[in-house]
Amino acid sequence: KSGTRLAPYAGVPTFLSAPHRPVDPVSPDLGDLQVALLGVPMDLGVTNRPGARFGPRALRTIERIGPYNHVLDCAPVFDLKVADIGDIPFASRYRLEQCHEDIERHVSAIVEAGVVPLCVGGDHSITHPILKAVGRDRPVAMIHIDAHCDTGGAFDQTKFHHGGPFRNAVLDGVLDPTRTIQIGIRGAAEYLWEFSYESGMTVVHAEDVSGMGIAKIIEMAREVVGDAPTYLSFDIDSLDPAFAPGTGTPEVGGLTTREVLELLRGLKGVNLVGGDVVEVAPQYDATANTAHAGAQVLFEILSLMVFSPAVAGNSG
Amino acid sequence: KSGTRLAPYAGVPTFLSAPHRPVDPVSPDLGDLQVALLGVPMDLGVTNRPGARFGPRALRTIERIGPYNHVLDCAPVFDLKVADIGDIPFASRYRLEQCHEDIERHVSAIVEAGVVPLCVGGDHSITHPILKAVGRDRPVAMIHIDAHCDTGGAFDQTKFHHGGPFRNAVLDGVLDPTRTIQIGIRGAAEYLWEFSYESGMTVVHAEDVSGMGIAKIIEMAREVVGDAPTYLSFDIDSLDPAFAPGTGTPEVGGLTTREVLELLRGLKGVNLVGGDVVEVAPQYDATANTAHAGAQVLFEILSLMVFSPAVAGNSG
Amino acid sequence: KSGTRLAPYAGVPTFLSAPHRPVDPVSPDLGDLQVALLGVPMDLGVTNRPGARFGPRALRTIERIGPYNHVLDCAPVFDLKVADIGDIPFASRYRLEQCHEDIERHVSAIVEAGVVPLCVGGDHSITHPILKAVGRDRPVAMIHIDAHCDTGGAFDQTKFHHGGPFRNAVLDGVLDPTRTIQIGIRGAAEYLWEFSYESGMTVVHAEDVSGMGIAKIIEMAREVVGDAPTYLSFDIDSLDPAFAPGTGTPEVGGLTTREVLELLRGLKGVNLVGGDVVEVAPQYDATANTAHAGAQVLFEILSLMVFSPAVAGNSG
Amino acid sequence: KSGTRLAPYAGVPTFLSAPHRPVDPVSPDLGDLQVALLGVPMDLGVTNRPGARFGPRALRTIERIGPYNHVLDCAPVFDLKVADIGDIPFASRYRLEQCHEDIERHVSAIVEAGVVPLCVGGDHSITHPILKAVGRDRPVAMIHIDAHCDTGGAFDQTKFHHGGPFRNAVLDGVLDPTRTIQIGIRGAAEYLWEFSYESGMTVVHAEDVSGMGIAKIIEMAREVVGDAPTYLSFDIDSLDPAFAPGTGTPEVGGLTTREVLELLRGLKGVNLVGGDVVEVAPQYDATANTAHAGAQVLFEILSLMVFSPAVAGNSG
Amino acid sequence: KSGTRLAPYAGVPTFLSAPHRPVDPVSPDLGDLQVALLGVPMDLGVTNRPGARFGPRALRTIERIGPYNHVLDCAPVFDLKVADIGDIPFASRYRLEQCHEDIERHVSAIVEAGVVPLCVGGDHSITHPILKAVGRDRPVAMIHIDAHCDTGGAFDQTKFHHGGPFRNAVLDGVLDPTRTIQIGIRGAAEYLWEFSYESGMTVVHAEDVSGMGIAKIIEMAREVVGDAPTYLSFDIDSLDPAFAPGTGTPEVGGLTTREVLELLRGLKGVNLVGGDVVEVAPQYDATANTAHAGAQVLFEILSLMVFSPAVAGNSG
Amino acid sequence: KSGTRLAPYAGVPTFLSAPHRPVDPVSPDLGDLQVALLGVPMDLGVTNRPGARFGPRALRTIERIGPYNHVLDCAPVFDLKVADIGDIPFASRYRLEQCHEDIERHVSAIVEAGVVPLCVGGDHSITHPILKAVGRDRPVAMIHIDAHCDTGGAFDQTKFHHGGPFRNAVLDGVLDPTRTIQIGIRGAAEYLWEFSYESGMTVVHAEDVSGMGIAKIIEMAREVVGDAPTYLSFDIDSLDPAFAPGTGTPEVGGLTTREVLELLRGLKGVNLVGGDVVEVAPQYDATANTAHAGAQVLFEILSLMVFSPAVAGNSG
Repeated sequence: KSGTRLAPYAGVPTFLSAPHRPVDPVSPDLGDLQVALLGVPMDLGVTNRPGARFGPRALRTIERIGPYNHVLDCAPVFDLKVADIGDIPFASRYRLEQCHEDIERHVSAIVEAGVVPLCVGGDHSITHPILKAVGRDRPVAMIHIDAHCDTGGAFDQTKFHHGGPFRNAVLDGVLDPTRTIQIGIRGAAEYLWEFSYESGMTVVHAEDVSGMGIAKIIEMAREVVGDAPTYLSFDIDSLDPAFAPGTGTPEVGGLTTREVLELLRGLKGVNLVGGDVVEVAPQYDATANTAHAGAQVLFEILSLMVFSPAVAGNSG
Repeated sequence: KSGTRLAPYAGVPTFLSAPHRPVDPVSPDLGDLQVALLGVPMDLGVTNRPGARFGPRALRTIERIGPYNHVLDCAPVFDLKVADIGDIPFASRYRLEQCHEDIERHVSAIVEAGVVPLCVGGDHSITHPILKAVGRDRPVAMIHIDAHCDTGGAFDQTKFHHGGPFRNAVLDGVLDPTRTIQIGIRGAAEYLWEFSYESGMTVVHAEDVSGMGIAKIIEMAREVVGDAPTYLSFDIDSLDPAFAPGTGTPEVGGLTTREVLELLRGLKGVNLVGGDVVEVAPQYDATANTAHAGAQVLFEILSLMVFSPAVAGNSG
Repeated sequence: KSGTRLAPYAGVPTFLSAPHRPVDPVSPDLGDLQVALLGVPMDLGVTNRPGARFGPRALRTIERIGPYNHVLDCAPVFDLKVADIGDIPFASRYRLEQCHEDIERHVSAIVEAGVVPLCVGGDHSITHPILKAVGRDRPVAMIHIDAHCDTGGAFDQTKFHHGGPFRNAVLDGVLDPTRTIQIGIRGAAEYLWEFSYESGMTVVHAEDVSGMGIAKIIEMAREVVGDAPTYLSFDIDSLDPAFAPGTGTPEVGGLTTREVLELLRGLKGVNLVGGDVVEVAPQYDATANTAHAGAQVLFEILSLMVFSPAVAGNSG
Repeated sequence: KSGTRLAPYAGVPTFLSAPHRPVDPVSPDLGDLQVALLGVPMDLGVTNRPGARFGPRALRTIERIGPYNHVLDCAPVFDLKVADIGDIPFASRYRLEQCHEDIERHVSAIVEAGVVPLCVGGDHSITHPILKAVGRDRPVAMIHIDAHCDTGGAFDQTKFHHGGPFRNAVLDGVLDPTRTIQIGIRGAAEYLWEFSYESGMTVVHAEDVSGMGIAKIIEMAREVVGDAPTYLSFDIDSLDPAFAPGTGTPEVGGLTTREVLELLRGLKGVNLVGGDVVEVAPQYDATANTAHAGAQVLFEILSLMVFSPAVAGNSG
Repeated sequence: KSGTRLAPYAGVPTFLSAPHRPVDPVSPDLGDLQVALLGVPMDLGVTNRPGARFGPRALRTIERIGPYNHVLDCAPVFDLKVADIGDIPFASRYRLEQCHEDIERHVSAIVEAGVVPLCVGGDHSITHPILKAVGRDRPVAMIHIDAHCDTGGAFDQTKFHHGGPFRNAVLDGVLDPTRTIQIGIRGAAEYLWEFSYESGMTVVHAEDVSGMGIAKIIEMAREVVGDAPTYLSFDIDSLDPAFAPGTGTPEVGGLTTREVLELLRGLKGVNLVGGDVVEVAPQYDATANTAHAGAQVLFEILSLMVFSPAVAGNSG
Repeated sequence: KSGTRLAPYAGVPTFLSAPHRPVDPVSPDLGDLQVALLGVPMDLGVTNRPGARFGPRALRTIERIGPYNHVLDCAPVFDLKVADIGDIPFASRYRLEQCHEDIERHVSAIVEAGVVPLCVGGDHSITHPILKAVGRDRPVAMIHIDAHCDTGGAFDQTKFHHGGPFRNAVLDGVLDPTRTIQIGIRGAAEYLWEFSYESGMTVVHAEDVSGMGIAKIIEMAREVVGDAPTYLSFDIDSLDPAFAPGTGTPEVGGLTTREVLELLRGLKGVNLVGGDVVEVAPQYDATANTAHAGAQVLFEILSLMVFSPAVAGNSG
């Protein structure tokens, strides 16, 4: 009767049930891929609770995400040439800076192969080396959804912690702060983020979201990034802890999943050249709601890539 | 001093602390009941995570629901002749279709005795045989609150799975699709639900709820069902997983409990002839929030029945 | 590089990482403190689930609350002379009324020393003896955020349970009902709370919050309390169980943390003379979200105290 | 094919799936019962974590205990006239001593009706009033399995806490200390239990169990109680926390379930006149293992009652 | 410094971190494999709690099992040609008997290819069709570690439930009962298992394990199976719920992991022709201990296969 | 009535409810302390799951450990001059090797003040720098209870990970391998621990514990260390995961708490000069059993210090 469907709980789990395509880290052959889904299991940059190194595994084991996005009208795993290419291999699980080098080198190879990277962290410090790969040729624009600006400076003897990737990226010339919008900001560390304001980023605080409305924020985001090559970075702690308890630095008073979905779906056509979902720490995720929300956001970003000129133009 | 109250945690647990009135399944004597609360512990129709067979037990063990509904101004367990009559007995826990027959036969006996059934699932496939009992004499209208339309066709060799009860009910002539409204719809299976649109159902997507507002949706629902005999089916996954993680096919981006309560309370006076709360799977409910929300919704539906002409007319 | 910061998970935990300043319960020396943070680990007044006696420990172990409140623009642990002075010592853990006497005596000593008490419960019955201390000289105004009015009368042989502290406080002449607003009210016990209406309290139900908007409620609250000495009592069950499952009498359909933060921050300048956060029961808090929200609210109330004339005037 | 069996998860839950037979607390009619299973949801006597008031509900909702005990060769729910008669009604949930009076009066009525009580707590303080009922006519012998001797004196203004029931029972003349054995004792409060030694109880420490072997302990227990009317009191914290985490005063280094089952089954023929399972606090029982173990022990004690002369002689 | 190791949490998860080798279900090419690890995500045969369909995913995501077995002195994933070949594809997730046919057909293809199957369930009913494949040519011997004999007859209209696979296998002539030993048996259903005794199986009850000692049981097991082709079936509920809470029909009083490891390691050299680990239901596994124990047992069985003549002879 | 006792859940939590005595890290004044309890919240050395940085907080919040040890007959918090001196301050939470330097320097100051350190980790890598402090003047003997030998070499570019502290300590001349015994060893990494055997350590595997018996192991341990200054290092993963799930590298088949308590209590009189409890990761500890066991072991080690010549001689 009308055929058999694959049960959602069957088989070796991959991101969004995409095909598993392991690549040789030494000489990666990405074939005709348009988008590479890859894990970055590294959490050495956290300021508080570790655990996001298990984020990629957590997102892979969520069942029933996709195939069809009825709001954006696409089925991205089928519409795009996309695969789960596994995790970034690290030379050492003990060296924050060296892991960043591994990430930059590995993602650069993907970018150079003309493939758009869509990464799953790991802590947010990984976005700095990813941006160094993605923005190597020119600084990129960014839509950044997060509870924290992550533009803090050095402390505890390093500037490569997860509280500073976007300061670093601007100073390295790979991120254009005037084309960067940060959405969902809150918490008690505002005094650390002067750089966001000084460098010209647009900051939307969580406490202003109800008043502004998501439609207005979408409009602002589209205006800020224009048609520039744009990176989309999603920190799961942008969501309120009721929606995403499983993260290392939760902040009360955050976004709802419905707001986040509306926001993301409003970005159709933005010229995405890369993206990430970071900071899912499954040890704190008693219901798996956090990994579930993370996987859904991963699906939405991949859906947006169907309509991104940068991805569409790269038909393999 | 001012008397003793029964502690909420005392005694053998029943739905809404209603009286326990076991009935003989062979020749049931329902006496002068107006409404029968009954469990339907069956989850053979699920597509993904099983567990809703434990839903009735989970809702019974929630303490402190009721007695008074101050918005609707009633105390339904006292205002109505109502009892927890136990669970539907199944001839086999291994046969989906036969369980459906057991449900239809058992609920038919209730309906024929002039008693309104209010069931606790179990998975959503149970609503098909319930509707066959409730709608035997004429197709009923329906207010259906859910993440999924559940109007899909056969696959994996059966059409009786939990993704298709309402298609089946329409095709069996017991549900009037033109008098059916489905609220809260989302997820990645929209392509399976063409039947909803083709048959004339009214579909309200979750992503449109904020924009429309609950008041507008209430208006639509009342208009769709009019004063027809109406069934109210509530799938707990209509709620966002933050509010109801304990279910088998959760979908990010759902309703809040406040929206659901507002919606339900807006239905005062609708001519309810039956109802259900389905898909609570307590294995995934680390905080018991899901069972709690389910029990509250059960209470709201029972409250609505105080004002339903079909129930009120049946004074035992 | 730019100095070392104390890790959030380091050391003996105190409320809001405030200094630990144990005081001798017999002859307490509070020095030049402006605000005393103290635990009240007593839950003998509950009607249903016990466990809030572990509330103070739960709030102390939440990391990363503060230091800076960017909406209210203050860093209260630094702006005020404040300390965690430990927990109220009880003569007996088995005697509800005697615990209330211990609380009244202990808090009175704080108040008499010119220090503002900010307590962490414990169940809500503790607010009655606290108000007897705070309102000894004249009845105080109150902003009360809760799912329940807590103005019920005696039953089960006592009037000192957690469902009646505000009736008791009014009848004792330490709370001015005409200057009392109760926000977030819902649940199935409305029939027990006639006293709220008869005594002249202003009651805002949870189901009316969306329609009214938080700005309007802030306006009402400010109008009700005026510039009177005001107590702020926050019951964690005002929040929806999705945001705060860890409590003894949860009620579906409650406030969100974003609404609560907006509400609290709208009270800048109110003349606070005391406050509390009560009913956190960590046994039911699988994600620690409840204790986290409770600690955040504690921080917000302490932030408000920076701007309270009663506190500011008391510069030690 | 070979008939239908009732699914374990079906219907209103009762202790050991025994018939539900509510009794009127004012004039109870126990008919021809031999054994009454009843809940005692009271935890006002705890020294630390409350929660055992939810113990009766927790044990009722465990599925799949019984019907057959192949070691003792009986099916006690069928072999005996037994029913779940509900919970003891309390005049107040706030008064420890009055609850004890309620227990004594209620259990006395059962005993006077010639029915053997088998209670589910609640905290261990309930055993004092139960013993006052069971031992009214002559002091009884006791087999007591626990981490604690529970023979401590008054503190915090009462002697009726859960650390002292057996001292109280001896002093009230309802328990014969020379015919009392306490098994599994450990923890850091030995200095409080001199009364056990002074009054002549036999104490077996947990740290000696491996060396002695269960067979030897069974022999000692049988010798201590002889053929005297004997009460069997089982505190779930006798088990190691690995086996029973859900309790208020867990002690590392306890018994295994296999040891407990061997021990209990070695008591066949002992002249039991009552028994209890106490201190299950489901809030701390993430896996339900504790309630499961408690229900199994309840089943074993009921099985022993099949062979107890006192029960067998009472054939209704 | 001394090279890099792959972090245990990296990459797409597979059973025992074995290579992932998907096979075409229509015309499977198993190449030179000696042992195939495969998932059987089917739990339609359960009598109580469902959930074991998620067992394969749960075991795959356990990190840090192997590589070296120092007691058996082998590194089985390296010593053998072995791969994770994915899960058995089912024509329908709703048909117990048809799933059994799918299993039999799929495992038969593996056996016919000269590859030894090592399966991860799923509920225990799957072992019947596996045995029909493995024992097709001659009845096999079996070492069966379980809380239940699983030799019950039909009820609820089927004999294919998880309580009867070994009765079915004997009656189908694929299992030799006189060469079958069942270890760890307990629980309250002994009256259903007469077939074990009547057919000549050797049954070792859990309550006799301490007295007999594991060494004696090993001796018995080796004697029962001799050098016959032997199947090893491990039901996780053989373990006590303290060690393995995550299963559908837990039984108090079971084996410890240390006993199970000793027992399994005592079987070195037994002529294994297949094996399974079944009944892991991760929904009930709050600590992941159950899946962890299951993965360890899977590793031990694979280690035994290094020394099995049937496997060793099959060098691809 | 007989005085008031402090409730176990009251006040700011400290290790074993010892007095809180913060010390200035720059010029610490330890006064007349004999033993310093201190936290070492550092987990940068883990190979798998992080989280032990929260170990000190987890052990502090366990209630009801002590005061009396009836087997060793002491009340160590009262018998010794002991305090919780807080946590070791780290210059950076991102630098494994530098944290080790901080630990060595800080513990050296304690040792030089004539105070015996008893540390709570943190991961096991911390024991290397502790031993450098404790064994500075002469190599110490060691009783090491663990699942892993932790004598592995460098990989991933460092030798300072938690798999190698004892190799490092021997090579640094601060640990005498011939006076070192390692108890509870198991798992799949035996091939990494040749150094244990080559250097002359005594290794007792977990699988041999049942056969040998704890008494024999105590004898061996006492013989190995003799009356040398001895360090006692307890890794919580020596316990089976059923007893201690909350740790980063759990190994099935471990010790029971009863075995561990018997073993530790058998070491009365050993000349302890320091000790630690490490690897408690509360994120994985759903029942708090792991932290509870860790706190109990901390209490047992402190109890042993009452009888250690090295401690007793240092009477402040």
